[in-house]
Amino acid sequence: MKVGIIGLGYWGPNLVRNFASHPEVDLVYGCDLSDDRLALIKSRFPATELLKDYNELLKKDVDIIAIATPVDTHFKFAKMALDTGKHIWVEKPFTATSQEAQDLIELAEKKNLRIFVDHTFIYTGAVQKMRELVDSGEIGEIKYFDSVRVNLGLFQHDVNVIWDLAPHDLSIMNYLMPNSKVVAVAANGIANYYDHENVAHLSVYFEDNCFAHFHVNWTSPVKIRRMLVGGDKKMLVFDDMENFEKVKVYDAGVEMSSKEKIHEALVQYRMGDMHSPKVKSTEALSLGAAEFISAIHGNRDPLTCGKDGFDVVKILEASEKSIKNKGRLIEINQLEVV
Amino acid sequence: MKVGIIGLGYWGPNLVRNFASHPEVDLVYGCDLSDDRLALIKSRFPATELLKDYNELLKKDVDIIAIATPVDTHFKFAKMALDTGKHIWVEKPFTATSQEAQDLIELAEKKNLRIFVDHTFIYTGAVQKMRELVDSGEIGEIKYFDSVRVNLGLFQHDVNVIWDLAPHDLSIMNYLMPNSKVVAVAANGIANYYDHENVAHLSVYFEDNCFAHFHVNWTSPVKIRRMLVGGDKKMLVFDDMENFEKVKVYDAGVEMSSKEKIHEALVQYRMGDMHSPKVKSTEALSLGAAEFISAIHGNRDPLTCGKDGFDVVKILEASEKSIKNKGRLIEINQLEVV
Amino acid sequence: MKVGIIGLGYWGPNLVRNFASHPEVDLVYGCDLSDDRLALIKSRFPATELLKDYNELLKKDVDIIAIATPVDTHFKFAKMALDTGKHIWVEKPFTATSQEAQDLIELAEKKNLRIFVDHTFIYTGAVQKMRELVDSGEIGEIKYFDSVRVNLGLFQHDVNVIWDLAPHDLSIMNYLMPNSKVVAVAANGIANYYDHENVAHLSVYFEDNCFAHFHVNWTSPVKIRRMLVGGDKKMLVFDDMENFEKVKVYDAGVEMSSKEKIHEALVQYRMGDMHSPKVKSTEALSLGAAEFISAIHGNRDPLTCGKDGFDVVKILEASEKSIKNKGRLIEINQLEVV
Amino acid sequence: MKVGIIGLGYWGPNLVRNFASHPEVDLVYGCDLSDDRLALIKSRFPATELLKDYNELLKKDVDIIAIATPVDTHFKFAKMALDTGKHIWVEKPFTATSQEAQDLIELAEKKNLRIFVDHTFIYTGAVQKMRELVDSGEIGEIKYFDSVRVNLGLFQHDVNVIWDLAPHDLSIMNYLMPNSKVVAVAANGIANYYDHENVAHLSVYFEDNCFAHFHVNWTSPVKIRRMLVGGDKKMLVFDDMENFEKVKVYDAGVEMSSKEKIHEALVQYRMGDMHSPKVKSTEALSLGAAEFISAIHGNRDPLTCGKDGFDVVKILEASEKSIKNKGRLIEINQLEVV
Repeated sequence: MKVGIIGLGYWGPNLVRNFASHPEVDLVYGCDLSDDRLALIKSRFPATELLKDYNELLKKDVDIIAIATPVDTHFKFAKMALDTGKHIWVEKPFTATSQEAQDLIELAEKKNLRIFVDHTFIYTGAVQKMRELVDSGEIGEIKYFDSVRVNLGLFQHDVNVIWDLAPHDLSIMNYLMPNSKVVAVAANGIANYYDHENVAHLSVYFEDNCFAHFHVNWTSPVKIRRMLVGGDKKMLVFDDMENFEKVKVYDAGVEMSSKEKIHEALVQYRMGDMHSPKVKSTEALSLGAAEFISAIHGNRDPLTCGKDGFDVVKILEASEKSIKNKGRLIEINQLEVV
Repeated sequence: MKVGIIGLGYWGPNLVRNFASHPEVDLVYGCDLSDDRLALIKSRFPATELLKDYNELLKKDVDIIAIATPVDTHFKFAKMALDTGKHIWVEKPFTATSQEAQDLIELAEKKNLRIFVDHTFIYTGAVQKMRELVDSGEIGEIKYFDSVRVNLGLFQHDVNVIWDLAPHDLSIMNYLMPNSKVVAVAANGIANYYDHENVAHLSVYFEDNCFAHFHVNWTSPVKIRRMLVGGDKKMLVFDDMENFEKVKVYDAGVEMSSKEKIHEALVQYRMGDMHSPKVKSTEALSLGAAEFISAIHGNRDPLTCGKDGFDVVKILEASEKSIKNKGRLIEINQLEVV
Repeated sequence: MKVGIIGLGYWGPNLVRNFASHPEVDLVYGCDLSDDRLALIKSRFPATELLKDYNELLKKDVDIIAIATPVDTHFKFAKMALDTGKHIWVEKPFTATSQEAQDLIELAEKKNLRIFVDHTFIYTGAVQKMRELVDSGEIGEIKYFDSVRVNLGLFQHDVNVIWDLAPHDLSIMNYLMPNSKVVAVAANGIANYYDHENVAHLSVYFEDNCFAHFHVNWTSPVKIRRMLVGGDKKMLVFDDMENFEKVKVYDAGVEMSSKEKIHEALVQYRMGDMHSPKVKSTEALSLGAAEFISAIHGNRDPLTCGKDGFDVVKILEASEKSIKNKGRLIEINQLEVV
Repeated sequence: MKVGIIGLGYWGPNLVRNFASHPEVDLVYGCDLSDDRLALIKSRFPATELLKDYNELLKKDVDIIAIATPVDTHFKFAKMALDTGKHIWVEKPFTATSQEAQDLIELAEKKNLRIFVDHTFIYTGAVQKMRELVDSGEIGEIKYFDSVRVNLGLFQHDVNVIWDLAPHDLSIMNYLMPNSKVVAVAANGIANYYDHENVAHLSVYFEDNCFAHFHVNWTSPVKIRRMLVGGDKKMLVFDDMENFEKVKVYDAGVEMSSKEKIHEALVQYRMGDMHSPKVKSTEALSLGAAEFISAIHGNRDPLTCGKDGFDVVKILEASEKSIKNKGRLIEINQLEVV
């Protein structure tokens, strides 16, 4: 297999490295307008073939085009790739609008091509373990999902902090709760320094009795990456800043003896043992690359496909509308791709 | 001085102990309907005089009535105390409505009596140190205030988790930002078990370029009590779960070279040293009792007076309206007590 | 039952409170030379009867004498109590020499009286849970035991930091490894400020293939209280500074495929899940008091009896000899009380 | 400059990468007996020239020979390099015996060649910051030095855990206390699995009133890398497992009012603020390489020279003698290289 990668900035070199080391990949092409980036890739990965012109890349005999450019160019590059018969790998967030996402999904379907959206976290040992725990029924029904991702980080100039950081956590939420339907979102926050919010809070309402919240911040003095998942049987904590013991399962919960009368005695909590399962440490990106290549061979959607990208963009889009209106509730009524 | 305490449940015994050990307090009366609670107080504090009838207590020659009963009874008991010429100490939240708070403030003023609202955290070494740091100018202008107070805790049956837990953090916010005017709030959350929300998120908008957020949860498997205060010079972290080093000052921030063009180079962050000042560990409640007695002597408002209680209730009231409407923005236009 | 307590300094009030609240204890006597201490006890525990003269206390009809005085007075007070037919409760370390310990054990046996040595940690939920895990065979054979107990603490003027802090950890070691025989100790350290060592390291050798080490320090800027217990099946960590999750069980270990040839491939390590069992939080001292009363009724030795006190003193005594000789190995050949 | 590296196992590739990226290095040769290792280096660093025969490497026009082979081969390879006029870079520990170290130092001196011993930690931002703090006088006189380096790690088959892990910490100790003279050591520990100790404790005595201790363990379920440095003015903690705030300075200490009478009131402790200075995060190895090249140009010893390697080996050698004799005190009387 041959892979062409457009965009060799922050993330692109990781794509080069991981695709290059996949046993089925013979050749990796890199494409970027910057001579400096091309030179850097050449020095670190001398076997890579480099080009400046994306049209030239599309003329090559490549199977996969991986797109690691700014989000507002994803659609254009992805469409060109699909039009010339290539499978596409697109960095998160999938597209700048849900309409773009839908168009790409339809185009890929028509041409029988595969879309991989790079929700990398789905391939981490921690998230895989959490899904396993949820699937086993050990956690029970999820009552709330709470995520914090804050640090002192680079400001993006094209999008706000929700578009930059929340896709990671939204993709994890969707992965852990595949049957829960998001119905509306509300977002609050502030842009302290220029047009785009640097602090934001996103609330997500579901059809059933569940609620999710995402706290993202580019201007926190401390780095926190933590999720709480409250099940009605057990509760999960995923702390990605821990070197070890990233996932903890608490045998903790709330129990009601009866719903008729509401008084203190009826709502009780229970706190038991904690268990921290070992999680695999294989690099997520290499597992993602393997999954995509396997999906192409199997003529099936990969684990993180266009639809998953669409679902996240749908929420981001609504969050944008909400935050510009100080938290107005925005309904999400077309989550299903036709 | 003589002090009468009504409500000897969870918090009442702490009031008995702290008032009893104040050098100027000769006698402490305790009042509760429960024989068990009265017996407990008798065994632990044999010098306390105990009564079951609040009217009897009001007839005694007491200077201060301290009210530690459920919030919906605060107004009734407080008004009776003021009517009979007693200074009042009221547990947080001050009252069930802002109208009640306003009425009590006006009544106390008319009768030249003092109101102490027990925002205990204001008297902790940590909060005092944070105020000192803000006052000194070291933190700069506060850009955002973020608070998390979650654990697996007792459900209250009369109020939701915002009314139960957020008063602590709202009082700290108001204390650290005395000149910032709250203009609107939005609250989102969920009631997983019965009428009252057990998970909630409260966003607070200010007149100026600042934003605050409060995350409260009765159903978290882990206990977190942490505040981030983002100043434009330095940033504060207050972690109340730390045994030592509760307050940390980060020489961290964001700098913009120019506002004309928005591109990456213009928004930069800076991370320098961290400093954790020693904070005093005197029990906050004993300092609160001393402050109230001193305020009464000085014929002045205590540090946490009726107005401070009113300000917090005003936000709680608006949060209630907002959360019942899935985060609708509720304006707060009468924060000033006339 | 009636209990007399001699020594009402730092720890004495805890004894008063815990014995007083035991349902079978009718009356608690307190005895101390200091009027201030007597007055303090009177104000906090008005039901206590107070005396200044120990001889007067011994004349009272008490069943138990609890001794919470400096260690060099333990023997004298304990002997007087046994001589007058009282069961004795002695604070750790049991005695100033192993000979004293042996004499008291023999005297008690002769008079059919009980000795309780207050190795309080044995009664904590954490240590009980660890013993349970060891007894179940889950940990396997213990290969090493490592303990750290350091902080910035009060200097004792009569003993060094080993005598002050290590008894806690030595008693836990003995409790977790009841069948392992200590054969020799070596201690190193330094006395930076006056005669007694403020930093010390104690190595303990066993008859079998096991090793223990104790690090104690009065002059550490941070407070650490942690034990590692390396079993050949699983490993334990007990971190007493954690508010929750004090005990952790690691499914980790080392495996050798063969002992014939020693090369890298044969010694491998394994790291699996971690499990943190819930531990009970009942106050250890109240469980200790209950155990002693129950042992007296049952005419049996309590869980922490004179022999346990003797075993710890034997090691302390040897450590003293070793540290004065810069770590010279001191054999312990008479650990068995005849 | 041209650099030849012998030994391309675990650490060798890091040497290749760091020397290759130094601006003054034109060419890097790699030498190893294993075809697999040579192939790996070729794929990752295609510009490297590779050889299997060390004699061939020595014939090349290289300025520096870097030796990253097992410790018992250091002397042989180093001597051959010096004999052929090359400067040498040797991994820690410098040599297998102090005599070997001394011979190499003398040989290098005679031939006016430079020796760099790779005590990498000396070049970390954390250690540099600690030295700066000590040099400034802020810490005062160092009273004790305590180091813990434990984890579940690969067993070495040629040496015990002291030889494997302690050189890091011994080199830091020597660097922070350049004027303190080690006079004797005592080591205790156990070999649970085969000939070499997997748990060990090393005590170090100084000429003046100071003491150091090193705890190393290959079989700990948790990874701890922490140093306490007790000064008589302030105290340092270096926790290398922290992602941020690796170095903390505590304004804590012990004070004696008088040395004449020893009673409680005279030994008091003080705990004030804590400060965590920012430390540089440049890769230590690249700074080491730069230092060596600069030292060669300047015809001077590098920061971590043969003498530093000798001092560490001297302690390791004595520790071996001590641990085989259950902690017997071993004097170190020839620490000075003639």
